[in-house]
Amino acid sequence: MDKRTIEVCFNPENLEYFDISNSHVIVVDVLRATSAICAAFANGAKSIIPIPTIEEARIAKEKGYLVAAERDGKTLNFADFGNSPFNFTADRVAGKDIAYSTTNGTKAIVKASDGLSVAIGSFLNLAAIAKWAKQKQTGNVMILCAGWKGRFCLEDALFAGALAKILLSDSCFTTHSDSVQASLQLWSLAQGDIFAYLELVAQRHRLKKLGLDDVLEYCFTPNSTDKVPELVDGKLVVL
Amino acid sequence: MDKRTIEVCFNPENLEYFDISNSHVIVVDVLRATSAICAAFANGAKSIIPIPTIEEARIAKEKGYLVAAERDGKTLNFADFGNSPFNFTADRVAGKDIAYSTTNGTKAIVKASDGLSVAIGSFLNLAAIAKWAKQKQTGNVMILCAGWKGRFCLEDALFAGALAKILLSDSCFTTHSDSVQASLQLWSLAQGDIFAYLELVAQRHRLKKLGLDDVLEYCFTPNSTDKVPELVDGKLVVL
Repeated sequence: MDKRTIEVCFNPENLEYFDISNSHVIVVDVLRATSAICAAFANGAKSIIPIPTIEEARIAKEKGYLVAAERDGKTLNFADFGNSPFNFTADRVAGKDIAYSTTNGTKAIVKASDGLSVAIGSFLNLAAIAKWAKQKQTGNVMILCAGWKGRFCLEDALFAGALAKILLSDSCFTTHSDSVQASLQLWSLAQGDIFAYLELVAQRHRLKKLGLDDVLEYCFTPNSTDKVPELVDGKLVVL
Repeated sequence: MDKRTIEVCFNPENLEYFDISNSHVIVVDVLRATSAICAAFANGAKSIIPIPTIEEARIAKEKGYLVAAERDGKTLNFADFGNSPFNFTADRVAGKDIAYSTTNGTKAIVKASDGLSVAIGSFLNLAAIAKWAKQKQTGNVMILCAGWKGRFCLEDALFAGALAKILLSDSCFTTHSDSVQASLQLWSLAQGDIFAYLELVAQRHRLKKLGLDDVLEYCFTPNSTDKVPELVDGKLVVL
């Protein structure tokens, strides 16, 4: 049987250059959207609806949804809260449907929907998302990084490397991708002391300026949840 | 005085997400377009005209230009030769104007023309292009990788890392860019044994399949020429 291939796309804007029709797509936006989504399901959220535009988020609020929405790290004024994972507490989200719009993350989720299936990955569910990908048994794996406004982001590449390393330890997977190789190598440099390494990451400094970098330890601590959010009929749910 | 910043864009398709109006742009397509361009000028070419489309390359041929044109590594049937640096020999190119069209490289050159200035970089002219960037004295530096059909290419990132390392050793330069950090780190892993490292590079294997990987040693040997091709009025020339 042909091996299943692993690919990494560093930005949603580049996804059109890949054929993902036979790929399970894992969307990654470590700082902070996909970490927040994993936190929400860990805390009992019922569903999360990815909302690309601010206007659609506003309409969702008028319809009575709980709305999490930010641009450039700042909570939109009509939203219930922004995209710090710490906002998605059990008392707020348990049993709720949440409309969620972020600078880079939701765009990536929408673009991913041409794949065989779409799931949400972060360090919070690293082992679980790897298990999810393995259990699919057929189909390739595309790790889709949200990046930052069309640009490469180190923190997403690190996660891609960590996940690719786990998958490639299973002989059913292979890769022919330079972006996978680069991600593996960057992860190999970072994994020994991830918090020292994070000093290099631009988004860490963007968040620090906004006083929003309190999430770093939480976002880079692996395997705090076994929940794998999947996109089903336009909603993220845990099956 | 503010420091001059260094940025790396891994694909021409992502250049629109950067403001390059105050940047000198260095275009890189190590395997093989910008290595070939540096080889052509080292061998006395008068000018090279970047031609984006096959149809425009065909028209250039009808007008009597020497035409170098390939797609996916294969020479187009109407062209005089393809884009192996070994084609651009002194007996063929000295004193000549060459129309040149490649899969990824010429697209990058055309997109770069919104910058303050545009020059061609490869390992062949690594020290010279670094000196060129330093001598500009003002303006930022954008290292624009040609990539491969919208995807990340390791060999271009390695060059970006090698060049960024030289520039950042000068205190007038700084960076806040994740793609620069990643390039520096990948270069740090590769530079000790570049030819062993190249086994990881996908384009190396694409070229090998086509019997075109004879150029590897030539393309990764630094500083065989001090010529810096620059874009002036739509033509590459050495000033």
